[in-house]
Amino acid sequence: MTPRTGRRPGESGARETILEAARSAFASVGYERATIRAIARGAGVDPALVHHYFGTKEDLFIAAMELPINPADAIRAILKEGLEGAGERIVRFFLSVWDAPTNQPALMSMLRAALTNDRAAKAFREFATGAVIGAVAETVRGRDARLRASLIGSHMLGLAFLRYGGRLQPLASASPDRIVSMVAPRIQSYLDAVAS
Amino acid sequence: MTPRTGRRPGESGARETILEAARSAFASVGYERATIRAIARGAGVDPALVHHYFGTKEDLFIAAMELPINPADAIRAILKEGLEGAGERIVRFFLSVWDAPTNQPALMSMLRAALTNDRAAKAFREFATGAVIGAVAETVRGRDARLRASLIGSHMLGLAFLRYGGRLQPLASASPDRIVSMVAPRIQSYLDAVAS
Repeated sequence: MTPRTGRRPGESGARETILEAARSAFASVGYERATIRAIARGAGVDPALVHHYFGTKEDLFIAAMELPINPADAIRAILKEGLEGAGERIVRFFLSVWDAPTNQPALMSMLRAALTNDRAAKAFREFATGAVIGAVAETVRGRDARLRASLIGSHMLGLAFLRYGGRLQPLASASPDRIVSMVAPRIQSYLDAVAS
Repeated sequence: MTPRTGRRPGESGARETILEAARSAFASVGYERATIRAIARGAGVDPALVHHYFGTKEDLFIAAMELPINPADAIRAILKEGLEGAGERIVRFFLSVWDAPTNQPALMSMLRAALTNDRAAKAFREFATGAVIGAVAETVRGRDARLRASLIGSHMLGLAFLRYGGRLQPLASASPDRIVSMVAPRIQSYLDAVAS
């Protein structure tokens, strides 16, 4: 999702400067109020360069937080294929991202930061509300769409918390297929319920 | 659940010494391997006094961690009334405990400790596996009982994480009744599914 060009001398320095400015902006004013323009100013570069290196503000946030994926992108891609079977695709995708050992450190430190650092919590809350919950609510309509989306998020996040953080048995050693077969119907029922 | 007697001079000192010894034991050997006998030895008192002040090891753990309730006790009481409607009773009870502002600091610091401190994580994992998941599995039988119990725990814990920790909207301001009406059917379906 992140546009990249061949490295030129100085490019990696500029990218790092932009990422620093972005982290500082997200921490001080949160995700919503941070703008690409202000981040570019903080980094001493043109806003066009920020877009060129990192794409949208959503992508820049993902890069700055060193998250392995953009969950909002992933959810949009999954839901674009239709609601049928989306519960299963969401759970399977979520487990594949978290089960990859290379992804776990960044994801766990995100969870930790959201619980222990007020500024990080605010930035993640705004990102989760605006981008992730928003991506579900674009597709899943009905009056409870955002609440249902946040309940799906609750279940998935708690699963990550106990399977990967707490290593609670038998959840930690259950196969992805087994978890998918049990969790997917509940996620699907949140997606399907129009006015439950 | 905690037997108490009229305070005598020195009682509160003895209680505090026992709690210190318990915290130290749970942190160093975990919940499973810590014994009332070893904790009493660490506190320089008779094991009978530990039982007298704090009841079972489960109750002692709750007191040492300063948790407002014993979740295993609560789950046993809820499930004793039967599986019918248990999903709703579990969600309603869970929200009532977390919604009480006086309970939140201790509960949040438990979540934080479980994510940031390996020893606390181990003690909580063992307590959650042995006592809480065990309490569900005593009633809810079938081959997946423990896995289903841990998935119920996932959903409830993630709900706490986003509603109280992250203050994610619209979850943070939704009424308990509204959340119960949406979450209870999914929890009930985990309880009911014998071999899903």
